Amino acid sequence: MMKKILCIATLSFTLLGCKTTLDLDTDSVKPSAAPAPVTELVSTPPLNIIMVVADGMGPAYTSGFRYYNDDPTTPEVETNWFERHHVGNSSTYPASVSGLVTDSAASATALASGVKSYNGAIGVDINKQPVTTVLHTAKLKGMRTGLAVTSQIVHATPAAYVAHNENRRNYDAIADSYFDDRVDGQFKVDVMLGGGTKYFKREGRDLTAEFVGAGYVYVDDYAELADVPQGSKLLGLMAPVGLPWALDDPQAQRLQVLTEQAVRHLENPEGFFLLVEASQVDWAGHGRDINGAMAEMSDLHETLLWIEEYQKTHPNTLVVVTADHSTGGLTLAANGEYRWSPEDLHQINMSVPKMIETMLAEQMNGTERVNFISEQLGFALTADQEETLVLLDMTQQPRPLEDVIKRMIDTHTNTGWTTHGHTAIDVQIFAHGPHQDMFAGYLDNTEIAKRIFAILEK
Amino acid sequence: MMKKILCIATLSFTLLGCKTTLDLDTDSVKPSAAPAPVTELVSTPPLNIIMVVADGMGPAYTSGFRYYNDDPTTPEVETNWFERHHVGNSSTYPASVSGLVTDSAASATALASGVKSYNGAIGVDINKQPVTTVLHTAKLKGMRTGLAVTSQIVHATPAAYVAHNENRRNYDAIADSYFDDRVDGQFKVDVMLGGGTKYFKREGRDLTAEFVGAGYVYVDDYAELADVPQGSKLLGLMAPVGLPWALDDPQAQRLQVLTEQAVRHLENPEGFFLLVEASQVDWAGHGRDINGAMAEMSDLHETLLWIEEYQKTHPNTLVVVTADHSTGGLTLAANGEYRWSPEDLHQINMSVPKMIETMLAEQMNGTERVNFISEQLGFALTADQEETLVLLDMTQQPRPLEDVIKRMIDTHTNTGWTTHGHTAIDVQIFAHGPHQDMFAGYLDNTEIAKRIFAILEK
Repeated sequence: MMKKILCIATLSFTLLGCKTTLDLDTDSVKPSAAPAPVTELVSTPPLNIIMVVADGMGPAYTSGFRYYNDDPTTPEVETNWFERHHVGNSSTYPASVSGLVTDSAASATALASGVKSYNGAIGVDINKQPVTTVLHTAKLKGMRTGLAVTSQIVHATPAAYVAHNENRRNYDAIADSYFDDRVDGQFKVDVMLGGGTKYFKREGRDLTAEFVGAGYVYVDDYAELADVPQGSKLLGLMAPVGLPWALDDPQAQRLQVLTEQAVRHLENPEGFFLLVEASQVDWAGHGRDINGAMAEMSDLHETLLWIEEYQKTHPNTLVVVTADHSTGGLTLAANGEYRWSPEDLHQINMSVPKMIETMLAEQMNGTERVNFISEQLGFALTADQEETLVLLDMTQQPRPLEDVIKRMIDTHTNTGWTTHGHTAIDVQIFAHGPHQDMFAGYLDNTEIAKRIFAILEK
Repeated sequence: MMKKILCIATLSFTLLGCKTTLDLDTDSVKPSAAPAPVTELVSTPPLNIIMVVADGMGPAYTSGFRYYNDDPTTPEVETNWFERHHVGNSSTYPASVSGLVTDSAASATALASGVKSYNGAIGVDINKQPVTTVLHTAKLKGMRTGLAVTSQIVHATPAAYVAHNENRRNYDAIADSYFDDRVDGQFKVDVMLGGGTKYFKREGRDLTAEFVGAGYVYVDDYAELADVPQGSKLLGLMAPVGLPWALDDPQAQRLQVLTEQAVRHLENPEGFFLLVEASQVDWAGHGRDINGAMAEMSDLHETLLWIEEYQKTHPNTLVVVTADHSTGGLTLAANGEYRWSPEDLHQINMSVPKMIETMLAEQMNGTERVNFISEQLGFALTADQEETLVLLDMTQQPRPLEDVIKRMIDTHTNTGWTTHGHTAIDVQIFAHGPHQDMFAGYLDNTEIAKRIFAILEK
């Protein structure tokens, strides 16, 4: 019993440290991954919780980012935010009805509520019944709540923290619920930043006007966003659907800016819960686009560095970062060659979809396409690649045209992909701040929500 | 300074726990992944160290094994040894001269000595100069030393702990060095179990006789092995090169048996250092063989369960388990389908190479091949797959013939692969026993060796 009390008293290393103690006791290594009851693990709660979900960021993305982000002028490989704060790994499988490979809706529902559900579920269980999320609990506790994402704010991950809907595709209904559904009479989310005018200003209903009528500030550009008086209730929609790719967005470091602005309005004596999502790491993975993936990782990393600095000056803030699953079956080498060469990706300053859009808009001929793509990629094309561009059938849909360019980048970097969808590999967990070690070691994704509930309910 | 003393005094959570303390101090989060000087981290050393290298076991292998090993009769997904003891992740890149994707020789040299070297290097640095390994240091300290592996005992991983050679392919020279090179006048390894008669009993030199002449027991079968008097110096070579695949080996749980026998001879008051290698996880990955990979993971898992039980009754034993790299670009789902289905792999009780060998030996005709493969795989073949088997050109080399069957298993399980080689993704670190938390969080592979040196040199 003394040992148990010791574990509880020394939360900061319960998941690892107590094993040390216990392993020294001949009969006390328990062959069970079941964590200690989480309510026992909490001492004083942090004032603020920043939960960051990097959608689709499997372990190949963080390993790859280390090498992409390496300073070539130094002999050693530089480490970054991810190495500083890596504490554990998480399984992501959905409810058994959906097999072993999750989608973002089921995984976000697990991360938000601690409940496994079916692929497509938004804040509902396998019986389509609403589940309580950590965002709801934070609001009930009197904390302010916020979203800062690079997708439309009604996309699967943010939606699962806020709404309850049997199908992630019901974007209009999910948008309506952001206004119509209340927690204890209050709006669920105080600050909502991302994309989605298509769903909030649509024929038949203008939710932006309704939110303004209810006392929210509504903005749709970054200049206005910067001028909103501190502490406002805020709806900021910077694009019709998702934001532009990080590579193409005129707003530099867009997720960092949205996060910083959200925090400016959320800070208050009762604390806040902020969900940040790097939504488009996943979208680049679905597109099997290593150029886009590393750019979205960079946008995320800048955001994490800003949060790390914020946490230093606001030490009573818990930061938890994870992914919902891995996308694309990304591998850092392929085709039998022991090489992965991301360095030239830094030369590419336009997304591949934008390259195709430009080639189509300017009706480029074969030679113009070769010159344009050579200039955009910044590395020499092979004779075969040039011929492919000359002969390219520009009447195809954009996606197959994009794939031609993406495979050229894969060949140059020796990047591998196995799917346009998701895979079942575990993802990483990162944490810093009070109770960071509650997230250490192996945890199922539902355990991440259960630990945040335990902290909130203290 | 108080904080630093606190960190040193509370080793068991230094790598994570001290961040908790420090994050609460506004100016003390240092943006550096550089671990504290390891000599400061060590209190009393463990008596025994068991280092397990699972060759090629990237994170997709451990995630996949969880689902392969799941009990289908229970609603929940069972966890296993890997979830109980996961403490961190490790980068594996070799010396920059070899790029970002390591081979087993450079990675084993890093894990054994803490020194990054070039691909192919066996216990030598980039200038081909010998480096000291943790096994040498253990021997100098008076501990007994051992190897228990499923490859030939002169293969890259064990060789890098024992020998110094500029090229991993110099198997005969490496075998000679096991006898000829001494540490402080003593043989480097007291117990050597695995495969390799081809290198130890060869035309011109019979190292087995020389070892016997020097007081070692030599055995080449498991019955003899079981009868060797406890505490013997021992050379046991159970195969000409590597051991048979786990699926084909008449000796059940071969790695567990070798490990148990090694420990029986190594136990002594001065303690021991044992290197265990699950060598053939990597070989299955090179063969893009999910059937073989999961069977080798099972063989490893049985071994880890035995070691876990041993550690409970010998609590002053530190167990550290990691991989040297990931092999094959394995992904748990492929081709856009949100499915990974390993359950039917349990029906397959013969390796695919053995299936091909059997089909060739028995000169099966088309119909016999369809019946034989259907029986071996235990699931229904599609009409196209049956036709492929009927029309199969059996005059091809075995490897392309194996690939035909392996792709049928990949289609059934929806498994993806991108390469016959290695990739640059980080691998996991697992540890239990004294000082387990010295291996927590993110560590480069060289840091694993540096921590073991620190424990040994205490």
